[in-house]
Amino acid sequence: MSRPQFARETSTHGEFVRQPNRFTDRITADGTSGWPAEPGRYRLVVSLACPWAHRSVIARRLLGLEDAISLAVVDPIRDERGWRFTLDPDDRDPVLGIGFLAEAYRAADPGFTGRVTVPSLVDTRSGRVVTNDYPRITLDLSTQWRAWHREGAPELYPEHLRAEIDAVNADVFRDVNNGVYRCGFATSQEAYESAYQALFARLDALSERLAHQRYLVGDTITEADVRLFTTLVRFDAVYHGHFKCNRQKLTEMPVLWAYARDLFQTPGFGDTVDFDHIKRHYYATHEQLNPNRVVPVGPDLGGWHAPHGREALGGRPFGDGTPPA
Amino acid sequence: MSRPQFARETSTHGEFVRQPNRFTDRITADGTSGWPAEPGRYRLVVSLACPWAHRSVIARRLLGLEDAISLAVVDPIRDERGWRFTLDPDDRDPVLGIGFLAEAYRAADPGFTGRVTVPSLVDTRSGRVVTNDYPRITLDLSTQWRAWHREGAPELYPEHLRAEIDAVNADVFRDVNNGVYRCGFATSQEAYESAYQALFARLDALSERLAHQRYLVGDTITEADVRLFTTLVRFDAVYHGHFKCNRQKLTEMPVLWAYARDLFQTPGFGDTVDFDHIKRHYYATHEQLNPNRVVPVGPDLGGWHAPHGREALGGRPFGDGTPPA
Repeated sequence: MSRPQFARETSTHGEFVRQPNRFTDRITADGTSGWPAEPGRYRLVVSLACPWAHRSVIARRLLGLEDAISLAVVDPIRDERGWRFTLDPDDRDPVLGIGFLAEAYRAADPGFTGRVTVPSLVDTRSGRVVTNDYPRITLDLSTQWRAWHREGAPELYPEHLRAEIDAVNADVFRDVNNGVYRCGFATSQEAYESAYQALFARLDALSERLAHQRYLVGDTITEADVRLFTTLVRFDAVYHGHFKCNRQKLTEMPVLWAYARDLFQTPGFGDTVDFDHIKRHYYATHEQLNPNRVVPVGPDLGGWHAPHGREALGGRPFGDGTPPA
Repeated sequence: MSRPQFARETSTHGEFVRQPNRFTDRITADGTSGWPAEPGRYRLVVSLACPWAHRSVIARRLLGLEDAISLAVVDPIRDERGWRFTLDPDDRDPVLGIGFLAEAYRAADPGFTGRVTVPSLVDTRSGRVVTNDYPRITLDLSTQWRAWHREGAPELYPEHLRAEIDAVNADVFRDVNNGVYRCGFATSQEAYESAYQALFARLDALSERLAHQRYLVGDTITEADVRLFTTLVRFDAVYHGHFKCNRQKLTEMPVLWAYARDLFQTPGFGDTVDFDHIKRHYYATHEQLNPNRVVPVGPDLGGWHAPHGREALGGRPFGDGTPPA
C-alpha cells in the first residue's frame, strides 16, 4: 500500500497533501460522544518513531495517564500492510489480539483503504478504532481526562491561552510539523523549494520568538511546546538528510537548539524519545526516498544532554505543578 | 547503463567496488609511450561535479597548463548513455565533434561496455581516449608536462616527498575519496557501516595530522592536498546527506574545516569549485539513491569565505613559486 498511497497523497504539482484523519470520534468526559473517558477501556497505539504519535506519548506521561490509558507500541518499520505489532509475542498486540493496526480500522470501517496512521485510540471492548485524529487526541487528554490526571499534572492547554496556542500550532503545523514532510515527499523541485523556504522562514521566526522567552506561549510548557518538540527532536537524525531540510542542522540554529535541549532534559520529553525507532522507521519505510533502506549511523547525538542555559530566561516548566516521576 | 553498471560494481556483500580504469596509456615528455606531451593535441574532458576530474582541473590551473591542454566540460547530469556534451552548441563538443564521451571510448575500444568516466584525456587527432586513469593523469601533469608549466608553478609532486605523498594518498583514497562512495553506494547495512567507520576514523587521524601543520606533506601544497580537497569541498553539499556520511558535517570538524577553507581561498582551488554542478550531478544522476531527483537547497555555503587562521601554522602555499593569476 505504501507506494500507491504515497502517490495518492501527491498533487499534480508534486506537492505532498496529507490525507485527512478518517476517524474523528472523540472520547469525552461526559460520554455524550458515545465514547466516555473511562480508565482501562482504551488503548493508545503509537509508533515511537512518529512525531504525531509522539505528542500523545508525551502528553500521556506529563499528565500521568499511564494507568488510565494503556500503550501499544508498533514496529517502527511499516510494510505494505501498515503498522505491525511485531514487537509483541506472537506478533500480536496482547490486549487487542491483532497483528496489524489495520484490523482495528477495518473493525470500524470495513471499506477503509487509506493509510493506517498512529496515534490511534482503540476501544478494547469492540476492537474498533475510535479516533486517529492526532491534533484532537492530545487536547482531549488534557481536557477530557482531567479526573484521572496525576497530582501536579501541568496545564498543557489552559483556557486563557488557547487562542494563542491554537494560532502558534497552526503556523507550526503548516510550516514545520507537516512542512518537513512537504519537503521530503515533494516530487517536484518547485514543490520542494516552496516547502523548504516556508520551513526555514518559520524556524527563523520561531528563533526570534524564543530568543527572549523560554517557552512558546506563556511561561510554562504547553501543548505548543509538545508539538514543536516532536519535530525538532527528529530534525538532525532524519529530516535534515532524509527530507532534505538542510539549510542548517538544528545544532546550527542556536536558539532552537537550546530550546529543544531544554525540553529534552525536562521529564516527559527526552525520556520518551527513541532515536533507534526514529531512524529505522524513516530510512527503512520510505523506499521511494531511500531504496537501499540503509540507516545512517550519524549524527552524533551526544549534544542533547549538554547544558542549555535557558533557565536564565525564567519560566517554570510545570507552572504550579510538578514533573512526572 | 547506470543501474546495471551500478549493480556490476557491487559485491555480493553489498560493498561498492569501483571498476578499474580501462585506459591507462600515458602521455609522456619523451613520447616513448606513443603519446608525446604536445601542446594543443589533447583535450581534457571533465565534469565539474566529479571529484576525480576536479583534481585535474586544479592541477592544470595551478601548473598553468590551460594553453597547452584544452578543457571540455560535460553536463553534470549523466543519463544512461553516460557523460554528455549538452552544455555545448548543438550538444557536441566543438573540438572533438562528439555528443557523448562514450564515442571517444569506443573509438579506442569498440567493445567497451563499462562506465564512462571523467577525467579523460582524448587525442584530438584520432578522437580516441588516451587515458581515464585519474590518479596518473594529475601526476603526469606535474612530471611530464614541465616544459609547458607556467613560470612560478608549484611543485605538486616533489621527488624528495613522493614516498610520503604516495602513502598519504593511499590512505586518503581508500578511506576518504573512495570511502564516501563506499558509504553511499553500499547496498547492505554492514558494508555501509564498515565504510562509515573507516571514513571517520581516517578523518579523525587527518584532523590530528593537520592540527599542527598547515598542509598534508611538507610546508607547501602538494598533490596530497589537491586530492583531499576535492572530497572535503563536496562533503556537506553532497556526501553528508546523499551518501549518509553524517557523523558530523565538515563545518563541525574544526581542523579539517579550517584546512579546507584555507585551500578554498587559495587561487586554483576555490575558483575551480562549481557547487551547482556538484549538487545537480549527485542528486539527479543517482536514481538508486534519490529516485525523485530533487536537489536540496542547502546547505548554507557562505562559510567557505570565512577567515581560517591557518597562516599561524606557517607554511608557504606555493613554496618558491607563485599563485596562478
